[in-house]
Amino acid sequence: MNPRILAVGTGAIGGFYGGKLAQAGARVSTLCRSDYETVKSEGIRVASTFGDFHFTPERVIRRVKEYGSPPDYLLVGLKVLPEINTPEIIREVVGSDTAIVLLQNGVEIEESVARAFPNNEIISGLAFICVTRTDPGHIVHVDFGRLVIGRFPAGKSDKTDHLARLFNESGVPCTVSEDVVTDRWRKLVWNAPFNPISVLGGGADTKTMVDNPESLKLARQVMEEVCRIAEAEGHPLPAGVVEENIEGTRRMSPYKSSMLVDFEAGRPMEVEAILGNGIRAAKRHKIAVPHMESLYGLLKLVDEKIRNQRSP
Amino acid sequence: MNPRILAVGTGAIGGFYGGKLAQAGARVSTLCRSDYETVKSEGIRVASTFGDFHFTPERVIRRVKEYGSPPDYLLVGLKVLPEINTPEIIREVVGSDTAIVLLQNGVEIEESVARAFPNNEIISGLAFICVTRTDPGHIVHVDFGRLVIGRFPAGKSDKTDHLARLFNESGVPCTVSEDVVTDRWRKLVWNAPFNPISVLGGGADTKTMVDNPESLKLARQVMEEVCRIAEAEGHPLPAGVVEENIEGTRRMSPYKSSMLVDFEAGRPMEVEAILGNGIRAAKRHKIAVPHMESLYGLLKLVDEKIRNQRSP
Repeated sequence: MNPRILAVGTGAIGGFYGGKLAQAGARVSTLCRSDYETVKSEGIRVASTFGDFHFTPERVIRRVKEYGSPPDYLLVGLKVLPEINTPEIIREVVGSDTAIVLLQNGVEIEESVARAFPNNEIISGLAFICVTRTDPGHIVHVDFGRLVIGRFPAGKSDKTDHLARLFNESGVPCTVSEDVVTDRWRKLVWNAPFNPISVLGGGADTKTMVDNPESLKLARQVMEEVCRIAEAEGHPLPAGVVEENIEGTRRMSPYKSSMLVDFEAGRPMEVEAILGNGIRAAKRHKIAVPHMESLYGLLKLVDEKIRNQRSP
Repeated sequence: MNPRILAVGTGAIGGFYGGKLAQAGARVSTLCRSDYETVKSEGIRVASTFGDFHFTPERVIRRVKEYGSPPDYLLVGLKVLPEINTPEIIREVVGSDTAIVLLQNGVEIEESVARAFPNNEIISGLAFICVTRTDPGHIVHVDFGRLVIGRFPAGKSDKTDHLARLFNESGVPCTVSEDVVTDRWRKLVWNAPFNPISVLGGGADTKTMVDNPESLKLARQVMEEVCRIAEAEGHPLPAGVVEENIEGTRRMSPYKSSMLVDFEAGRPMEVEAILGNGIRAAKRHKIAVPHMESLYGLLKLVDEKIRNQRSP
């Protein structure tokens, strides 16, 4: 049975993974805003290290109410920003059997959706991918691509397994986690230092950040703070996770973080998802996270500047 | 008796204060590098809130050995950078009676000079001024201007008093401190947060930094760290110094820090004088300064980029 899927936020993440699910036979429609005209007439071209492909959505819509009967899955690839109210955006198309899949960055990003739709299954997903929407209807997938998905807050579900099967059939390595919140904290070990430092350090790629002893030291300290919060939250991370992330970063080809890509494009950054939520969790547990707070204070200033330049 | 003074490093600081001392009757010569030809033929034009003036040095030289018999005062306005070896630059012109006046930013910047010239009087000076060398031989003084000078490491001296008198006669408010090291720490309370944050926060002026609650919080935390180091060093600062600095900054017209001016001009920044030396002092006393260390880690990355761009 081919599920009906609506991808909401058809930027790089929604377009890429939505397109892959369509390759596996799912009936994937897309909600587009600025790219509507292009995607409606030409679909989405994806240049990918997994093989280039063209994605023609089943339907291209501008507002969720045009979609009709609720989908089996909502694939949410929206940025996590204070001004983007995900529950409001999707409300009219969420049916009682709709699983809401959040392919988004950061920690504690599921809560507001889970509260708004307490009877719906929430599937939380982490995309380890370097992918960019370069133009309307044009996506470039440069590196990586695997997914970790899991029922939120924990456990197994048929819908999660089914989705993972579709991804794997399409060629996207996708593992199912029964403790996806721990996976989120684990991913934050990388994101919390390297996303902010790449922006604040003058536009540094991964190699520059790990080669400079002072920024590497700072990255390690931020990572250790994330581990302490995760542990206090009941999601302890493996002992070697800090060194593993540093060594993994050393082995990468030099790579621009997603936050740096947003910054250079003059787009608001996911400051709250990547740092603010973690810092608030630390506060609940009275854990000192001065290095994260320092990055946060600076990023808020940079983010304010970006926002002022967008709407002066 | 009009003292003979050689200004070394005739950028904004050396040119401005050297010129003022000349107005008070001192015989001021200048050591110039890149500006030599212009200053030699045209002198230095200073547009100043204290009144515009023209400064014709007694002599303009390229190397200290051209100066002849040692001066009464060496007025050192060089940037404090790892690659600038002040003792080497001045060695050949330091006589037994030469007082070495360091008009420089940061803390613990006197030690290397004091070690190199253990029998010379060192006068440490803090310039509270907004002044820029806009072109060769052209200096613009925008705001403030007062000086605090004092014998290093502490105490009184006739030469310090004499110099202060000359400055005051020229219209530069100059006070003599018998504990100038404490004054350096006190100035660092402002410099350690606002210089780095202005650069790392995307080019923020003083108003932007104090208006944003997150960067203000970070600034306050850095200030408190500086106070703790100063106290451990035996230079306790008054209880209200943090709030006083914040309130003072609120009252300023929006102003670009000197580090931001250097950054925007693509020049190396005084990272060690403003942060590194303080952090090393904190280490000696086992004081945790995570906010200063965070700024330091990021600034080192930015500084590395600037240096790479200058000499690729």
